[in-house]
Amino acid sequence: MLTVALPKGALLKDSVARFAAAGLDFSAITDKDNRQLMLPSACGRARALLVRNGDVPVYVAYGQAQLGVVGYDVLLEQQRTVAQLLDLGFGGCRMAVAVKESSPYRRAADLPAHCRVASKFTHSARAFFDQLDLPVELIHLTGSVELGPLTGISEAIVDLVATGRTLRDNGLIAIEDLFHSTARLIGNPLALRLDSGELRDLVQAMNEGGATP
Amino acid sequence: MLTVALPKGALLKDSVARFAAAGLDFSAITDKDNRQLMLPSACGRARALLVRNGDVPVYVAYGQAQLGVVGYDVLLEQQRTVAQLLDLGFGGCRMAVAVKESSPYRRAADLPAHCRVASKFTHSARAFFDQLDLPVELIHLTGSVELGPLTGISEAIVDLVATGRTLRDNGLIAIEDLFHSTARLIGNPLALRLDSGELRDLVQAMNEGGATP
Repeated sequence: MLTVALPKGALLKDSVARFAAAGLDFSAITDKDNRQLMLPSACGRARALLVRNGDVPVYVAYGQAQLGVVGYDVLLEQQRTVAQLLDLGFGGCRMAVAVKESSPYRRAADLPAHCRVASKFTHSARAFFDQLDLPVELIHLTGSVELGPLTGISEAIVDLVATGRTLRDNGLIAIEDLFHSTARLIGNPLALRLDSGELRDLVQAMNEGGATP
Repeated sequence: MLTVALPKGALLKDSVARFAAAGLDFSAITDKDNRQLMLPSACGRARALLVRNGDVPVYVAYGQAQLGVVGYDVLLEQQRTVAQLLDLGFGGCRMAVAVKESSPYRRAADLPAHCRVASKFTHSARAFFDQLDLPVELIHLTGSVELGPLTGISEAIVDLVATGRTLRDNGLIAIEDLFHSTARLIGNPLALRLDSGELRDLVQAMNEGGATP
């Protein structure tokens, strides 16, 4: 049976809408009372796994889900063997370097060598600073990264910025973008190779579903 | 100023109560309307950082917090350079190997060599299976590990079990314990070495606070 990994949180509603437009109705998963993590589609020919953002590429890479929806930020961070099929366009945000508004730094290259940078996305941050040829000490945090400069554990942070409200509320300012991120449809490479047309048709329908606003 | 790292979630309420018993009132942090992540104590001579469980040892190891409260499970998983000061007793749970109830395995050593085991605690799981001399493939998940055996991505899981309800709800059964976990008071080693008595008195008061039920 076709299994689809859907991300909990901000990307869920739009993900369900895009699958619905392509004929797979997983809307029961967005019910407030839903506690199930594995749900059949209304038609019964597919099922959805409701997992954390970061676990979507794992389920798709291992083939437990043939398709999945996940933010580009997570894809870049994890570097899993999955196929990127579609840019779904929603969930837009940017990965940015941010510092205290009162700090003297206005570009990432201004940061002092060997300063500390806190992030949930330490692989992406490492790649960015390597490319700048700026050696920094990365501190991996799992949440509330905006506390980094406030507590003094780090000079700067690398984090996702959507509206910018969290930064403003904490007296921080974004000084440079690493990349822009949106939700992506990903697939298991082997499942795509063995596909007899079902996956191809679904991906195409989801692509067209995105064209109609 | 004395800074204390407190964990969001299940351990917060008891952590605040133990500091209160020792004279530091951080109860504002448990207000429903509180959105601040950095809060002064009622007396003004200390402040609390409200961070994720997994980030408590980071803030304490780097010295941004002199003290912190965190589950023993997280301490074992991270292996940070922090001093364990007190077993606070609350937040009891156990780290256990669990499998599908319908599976033939009733001890960890029954699991087939090279089978897959999903966990949020892959370091602890690795140490456990190494000690059993059983080679397994560990799959790191960040949440809902109970989905592992249900989706077939893994034969078994290693996860925290408190009441056992999540396991039962998903048709899983715990077959072996790795260790028992409770909340611990941890300290920054350098801060403890430079302490002029303030930390020592506080730790002692928290220890006595736990003796009175």
